[in-house]
Amino acid sequence: MIQRYSREVLSKIWTDEYRYKKWLDVELYACEAWEKLGKIPAKSLVHIKKNADKVNISKIDEIEKTTKHDVIAFLTAVAEVVGPDSRFIHMGMTSSDVLDTALACQLKDAADIILDDIDKLLIVLKRRAQEFKNTPVIGRSHGIHAEPTSFGIKFALWYAEFARNRRRLMCARRSIAVGKISGAVGTFANIPPEIEAYVCKKLGLEVEPVSTQIVQRDRHAHFFTTLAIIASSIEKVATEIRHLQRTEVLEAEEPFTKGQKGSSAMPHKRNPILSENLCGLARLVRSNSLAAMENVALWHERDISHSSVERVIAPDSTILVDFMLSRMTNMLDNLVVYPDIMQKNLDKLGGLIHSQRVLLALVEAGMTREEAYGTVQENAMKTWEAVRDSRKADFKELLKEDPLIKKNIKPSDIDKMFDLKYHLKHVDEIIARALKEGE
Amino acid sequence: MIQRYSREVLSKIWTDEYRYKKWLDVELYACEAWEKLGKIPAKSLVHIKKNADKVNISKIDEIEKTTKHDVIAFLTAVAEVVGPDSRFIHMGMTSSDVLDTALACQLKDAADIILDDIDKLLIVLKRRAQEFKNTPVIGRSHGIHAEPTSFGIKFALWYAEFARNRRRLMCARRSIAVGKISGAVGTFANIPPEIEAYVCKKLGLEVEPVSTQIVQRDRHAHFFTTLAIIASSIEKVATEIRHLQRTEVLEAEEPFTKGQKGSSAMPHKRNPILSENLCGLARLVRSNSLAAMENVALWHERDISHSSVERVIAPDSTILVDFMLSRMTNMLDNLVVYPDIMQKNLDKLGGLIHSQRVLLALVEAGMTREEAYGTVQENAMKTWEAVRDSRKADFKELLKEDPLIKKNIKPSDIDKMFDLKYHLKHVDEIIARALKEGE
Amino acid sequence: MIQRYSREVLSKIWTDEYRYKKWLDVELYACEAWEKLGKIPAKSLVHIKKNADKVNISKIDEIEKTTKHDVIAFLTAVAEVVGPDSRFIHMGMTSSDVLDTALACQLKDAADIILDDIDKLLIVLKRRAQEFKNTPVIGRSHGIHAEPTSFGIKFALWYAEFARNRRRLMCARRSIAVGKISGAVGTFANIPPEIEAYVCKKLGLEVEPVSTQIVQRDRHAHFFTTLAIIASSIEKVATEIRHLQRTEVLEAEEPFTKGQKGSSAMPHKRNPILSENLCGLARLVRSNSLAAMENVALWHERDISHSSVERVIAPDSTILVDFMLSRMTNMLDNLVVYPDIMQKNLDKLGGLIHSQRVLLALVEAGMTREEAYGTVQENAMKTWEAVRDSRKADFKELLKEDPLIKKNIKPSDIDKMFDLKYHLKHVDEIIARALKEGE
Amino acid sequence: MIQRYSREVLSKIWTDEYRYKKWLDVELYACEAWEKLGKIPAKSLVHIKKNADKVNISKIDEIEKTTKHDVIAFLTAVAEVVGPDSRFIHMGMTSSDVLDTALACQLKDAADIILDDIDKLLIVLKRRAQEFKNTPVIGRSHGIHAEPTSFGIKFALWYAEFARNRRRLMCARRSIAVGKISGAVGTFANIPPEIEAYVCKKLGLEVEPVSTQIVQRDRHAHFFTTLAIIASSIEKVATEIRHLQRTEVLEAEEPFTKGQKGSSAMPHKRNPILSENLCGLARLVRSNSLAAMENVALWHERDISHSSVERVIAPDSTILVDFMLSRMTNMLDNLVVYPDIMQKNLDKLGGLIHSQRVLLALVEAGMTREEAYGTVQENAMKTWEAVRDSRKADFKELLKEDPLIKKNIKPSDIDKMFDLKYHLKHVDEIIARALKEGE
Repeated sequence: MIQRYSREVLSKIWTDEYRYKKWLDVELYACEAWEKLGKIPAKSLVHIKKNADKVNISKIDEIEKTTKHDVIAFLTAVAEVVGPDSRFIHMGMTSSDVLDTALACQLKDAADIILDDIDKLLIVLKRRAQEFKNTPVIGRSHGIHAEPTSFGIKFALWYAEFARNRRRLMCARRSIAVGKISGAVGTFANIPPEIEAYVCKKLGLEVEPVSTQIVQRDRHAHFFTTLAIIASSIEKVATEIRHLQRTEVLEAEEPFTKGQKGSSAMPHKRNPILSENLCGLARLVRSNSLAAMENVALWHERDISHSSVERVIAPDSTILVDFMLSRMTNMLDNLVVYPDIMQKNLDKLGGLIHSQRVLLALVEAGMTREEAYGTVQENAMKTWEAVRDSRKADFKELLKEDPLIKKNIKPSDIDKMFDLKYHLKHVDEIIARALKEGE
Repeated sequence: MIQRYSREVLSKIWTDEYRYKKWLDVELYACEAWEKLGKIPAKSLVHIKKNADKVNISKIDEIEKTTKHDVIAFLTAVAEVVGPDSRFIHMGMTSSDVLDTALACQLKDAADIILDDIDKLLIVLKRRAQEFKNTPVIGRSHGIHAEPTSFGIKFALWYAEFARNRRRLMCARRSIAVGKISGAVGTFANIPPEIEAYVCKKLGLEVEPVSTQIVQRDRHAHFFTTLAIIASSIEKVATEIRHLQRTEVLEAEEPFTKGQKGSSAMPHKRNPILSENLCGLARLVRSNSLAAMENVALWHERDISHSSVERVIAPDSTILVDFMLSRMTNMLDNLVVYPDIMQKNLDKLGGLIHSQRVLLALVEAGMTREEAYGTVQENAMKTWEAVRDSRKADFKELLKEDPLIKKNIKPSDIDKMFDLKYHLKHVDEIIARALKEGE
Repeated sequence: MIQRYSREVLSKIWTDEYRYKKWLDVELYACEAWEKLGKIPAKSLVHIKKNADKVNISKIDEIEKTTKHDVIAFLTAVAEVVGPDSRFIHMGMTSSDVLDTALACQLKDAADIILDDIDKLLIVLKRRAQEFKNTPVIGRSHGIHAEPTSFGIKFALWYAEFARNRRRLMCARRSIAVGKISGAVGTFANIPPEIEAYVCKKLGLEVEPVSTQIVQRDRHAHFFTTLAIIASSIEKVATEIRHLQRTEVLEAEEPFTKGQKGSSAMPHKRNPILSENLCGLARLVRSNSLAAMENVALWHERDISHSSVERVIAPDSTILVDFMLSRMTNMLDNLVVYPDIMQKNLDKLGGLIHSQRVLLALVEAGMTREEAYGTVQENAMKTWEAVRDSRKADFKELLKEDPLIKKNIKPSDIDKMFDLKYHLKHVDEIIARALKEGE
Repeated sequence: MIQRYSREVLSKIWTDEYRYKKWLDVELYACEAWEKLGKIPAKSLVHIKKNADKVNISKIDEIEKTTKHDVIAFLTAVAEVVGPDSRFIHMGMTSSDVLDTALACQLKDAADIILDDIDKLLIVLKRRAQEFKNTPVIGRSHGIHAEPTSFGIKFALWYAEFARNRRRLMCARRSIAVGKISGAVGTFANIPPEIEAYVCKKLGLEVEPVSTQIVQRDRHAHFFTTLAIIASSIEKVATEIRHLQRTEVLEAEEPFTKGQKGSSAMPHKRNPILSENLCGLARLVRSNSLAAMENVALWHERDISHSSVERVIAPDSTILVDFMLSRMTNMLDNLVVYPDIMQKNLDKLGGLIHSQRVLLALVEAGMTREEAYGTVQENAMKTWEAVRDSRKADFKELLKEDPLIKKNIKPSDIDKMFDLKYHLKHVDEIIARALKEGE
């Protein structure tokens, strides 16, 4: 992934150094296990452990140019620093025993960072949900004013969604935190299951119950689709912010830092570029998940077509999701909120947003649903047209004057129906329900 | 989904009848809940419950042509058969309260059928894993002979994978078995949370902790990506069968029924068409999951763009996965297996498949890994070239004659290294590990 | 595709009747060609042509249950109505000679309807571009007011894009309007190239220059990705309409027919549901294109995995794109436009949208770009904050009072810089450029 | 894209140096155009052109950290080296005028390299098609032996497909070789169309007939889906090679270089890793095309969500396709081919592959198709079972002894029907047809 969208905390997992370190861990734990089985002399083990990490990374790359095989190049380089005892290294193992077990460590480490990112996001979401729980804002369906809701509920909604995403990622982490040291086709022909058990335990991994040459790729598909769902949730939040910051809506704004410029041509511009960026990045993570799913159907005991895909999407998708979560958390943490404008927008339709309540009152008073709907819709359309034409519009007054309505509801009762608090009466319960999801 | 790939057991969930039945269930349970709250007279409830299901489906479609709104059309049609008491129906609810809660029921029902399909598949996989556990077959990496494995292990591998998929689907089922009756923007303004709790409990659903106008679509994305992973696992099995049935391999064959014809032009053809079909269908289910992920980022408290997508992929992906599992289970249940040809194929490379064992023995005897590798590879290449050129090829004899090897291993020990049983010694343990996954 | 999103004009192409008719066309033209080569007696040909179309469709389906092969079932059913002369039918051909050549006809016919749909759309776009060419509307980048543009330019933009899409579809049509009658593996072993040439010519198809058993699937991938791009362009237009109809923007509205209801709960709602629907359907067409691309890499001289994919996406994607184009054309044709509200929105930022022009004037007057930018931005931010806080805001007056600006520009010149016409001076040229794309 | 899959010739297009060079080109050509219109003094233009390229790249990055806007950072850095005359740079332009016009140059340059790659591939394909045109090989459908074909036809098939892909890429190149300098919302308010025309002409680009702030993204979607189709074609070729190299088939092999090692565990392995790698990379390019299609529906006159996507997929997809084409061309150029093994495989089914010819002869002799099919299939199945059971199998002899066949065909005529040359008689014509595609 390009620098611009990478945070060091995550991208370091995908450096050569990190990978070779994990490869070495796998090999050395395997040596330890062999030593316990009496197959490596204790002295040799000590010698190996003391010298193996002197291996030179640039040397590995050089050797690979000849062997065209990265693990063999690695082993050759290690052999050079270890000497004759190197014959005990990689004993009975196939390259994928190292590669897949190390990859599991890398993905697991990436998952842990992303889980941590989600936790930080949850803290911000919780804080802002509570901060704005009594701030009324118009709820919109189809982009059209519907009924009032609370601005805090938006955060609570996202809180619950990311709490779900956290649980999903925990499952996906379990899916990929799995190693295998079962040899060339998974039969343990030249290496007993005890080695696998020992190495995996040391690395904090479960054991793949049945492997071929490799860990099965449904696990990785599970992981990358989970990242894609998280990216899609991020896109959802970002889309909301982009809408709220629109010139005509302007209920909230991304933080705009000192010195920042919105446009090279238009000095007045303040754009929701962080959120737009998040929407774009979501497309990448989502697309990558498809390639991961195509990786499942490998041939026989393995083919290597998955490898090139994973060399790209494993860093890219984990780095991007970490970056996205971090960027979004910051953005939401510092989101500038305009409750006054929210109020102005609530008033925009001349009271139309209370139409359902009147409808229900008419039904309760004995009208059929169809009759009541027709009556309210007629007055609503008049109001709506007045708003549209910039004429004075007061839905409440129209209703009070409608003879059919008069018959069923007292004018003073109509007044009561235009109270915003009515819509927020369950907000504490809703937010409590959301927060329970994060427990 | 077209007839050809639909089984009635699943496709019936997506009929108009089934959907309207679920809508009515939601509406009637809501009436029951309102009655308990004293908002509907007991008598009216009895009347509603007695008459509502007389609603005529073709009538609904007709009304929708005018209203361009399916739930309103449904309610209008119900009102016609219920009469004045119909004003109590849908009280305080928004269309999506009905739609999403009913959709949750449909998806849950589909999930249950698919879970059942997986169970049937697991039974077949278990049986065949045990049947063939001692049948040696060459393991292949990159399509090239690697080392021997057991044919039963292939089934065990798939068993473990589908046991994982079963657990994933259980999680995804929980994700979508969630209803909401919280009104137009999720505030419960006109309908108290008690109604939601009652209706969901009656329908076997959890309650969406925070909703907008709708249940949040990360849940559905989770469900459809899970189906896509299952489809990818099916593709993996199907790809293996296609390979095994190749003319040059022919270790197994799809069942070929009486009267079946393989080609309109070539009377000798017997083709793995079931498996090829499964590979194609997997592409569809996988693609659909992308559309489901694009559905997550709806606008504000909802937009309706997800609806058209779900009208297509909800039936299509569930019907396809049910069909695929059923077809695959049948095919594997009746798969024709040729152990004799497996043995012939094992012998094809003149013993080369035992190369690693010799390599390890040399290392154990004191050679460095690199030296040992070079020595074995040299003899391997000679053997390989002989096989390729249809000359007599005996890797074992070449090894016995190699002076470097002679120095390290006795010829009689080399003979022992060419024993297939050596590779199957852990097969019981492997299969036990697989089966444990299904518990 | 489900009824709801299907128009008969396109969906009829994918009925059994239509397909069998095309199969018969291929077979009969092949017989004509053979007759010309002297391999079928003239009398037999007459008899075949007279009787073959009496074939009973339900009979074919019944036979297929036994043969599990659709073309053989078809031929058997045809043989029943033709009698002994049926032995001349399908001579030297393989099933795919019929299937792929007939599929090419179906896709070509679908393409022609969609090309016609685009033509209808272009007419509407052209008309509305000219109608609104002098209607100023604020241009928005990032959802934020940028500078004024013309509402007609939006239509002109779409006109040019759909003119491009038309050309793309013409190319893609050529890609798939290709037949093959070259036998089981494409060698013409049992059928000379003359038959292929004759049949393709009769059907208005080109000949696949090299075929295997089938026409190569890069062609179909080209076709379905082209449909996906068209769907994405539709989504773009629909997204614009959804934005324009937002309550706070309301510069245009989808037509709202008499009797239509926007919400079962809120009688005041008028929602852009057509456009939202188009956005959803675009996701489906886009996803399908992926499956089409996965179809390219078939095995050897063909495998049949593409078949199930095409049975679904060929009807689905063509039916959907036809439906979408038709729906969008109607919607745009009747789009309700509010120039007064556009004007109100243009004034919303207190003149800020003219900031660039002042910046350029300052540069022209000799200021450096950075200085000018800083000066204008400072006044812009003051104005912007006033607007945000509902205070009186007049960017023009602020500029006139700024000492740095005063030094460089006369107040009366500043007045001139706030003229909307300045932004529309090239509109005729732009629209002319667009329309030229459609020639 | 990671180093491993990058060739310098293409990846250099995506360096900062290259991009800033293109930005500068756009800006300087615009200055030239302004000078011709009399808006920049000739002397200033000379000064600008002389100094602008002294701009320091690391300086740009540093400034961007403050401005959070790359083009402004670039302009500021340029201003520092140009001095006061810098106020003439970027006059009337918006960032996207620079960005999109420069991106068009980069994509065009990448397209030209890829076109060149295809030309090199076509040369190899042509050579090998002619080299092997008379080499018989079994044609396979469903992985099962069908009828003989020529190995050269495989290359001819690919030749025709890549000739098509070349034409597609030419179209897609035209789609994206389009610049725009029309200002903030595409109205040319502050910059006349003459500037755009001049700059685009200088850069070898067409002019976007109607732009918003940007060039429309259907063009880029066209480009990236075209790359995805090319990648899919590459996957198809690679899949064939993987099949041909299978141990049991071994009709061709990827070149295996000296020192290369196939497995860290199994010294005998020679794996088709280049082809497997190409299959994996195809998944990436295909997935990227989806993100490109999601970029089409930007908001209003532009949002910036496409930008992050393109920063990743523009380099990644072009670099990968260049790498893939180059790798494949090399691999096919040096592909090791085994005609003897092809012959052995042709004989594998005891003559069954000639079944259709016998069927046709029977029909010609007067049998109905059904009768003939049944008779031939019966003998075919006997032969097939014998082959399967490693018994002696001779289809020809069985046919000669069948009384029904005897009645219709002379034994000596049957002998003639088992001639491989019969299947290759049209090979010259087929290859000529293929090569014509490349003209």
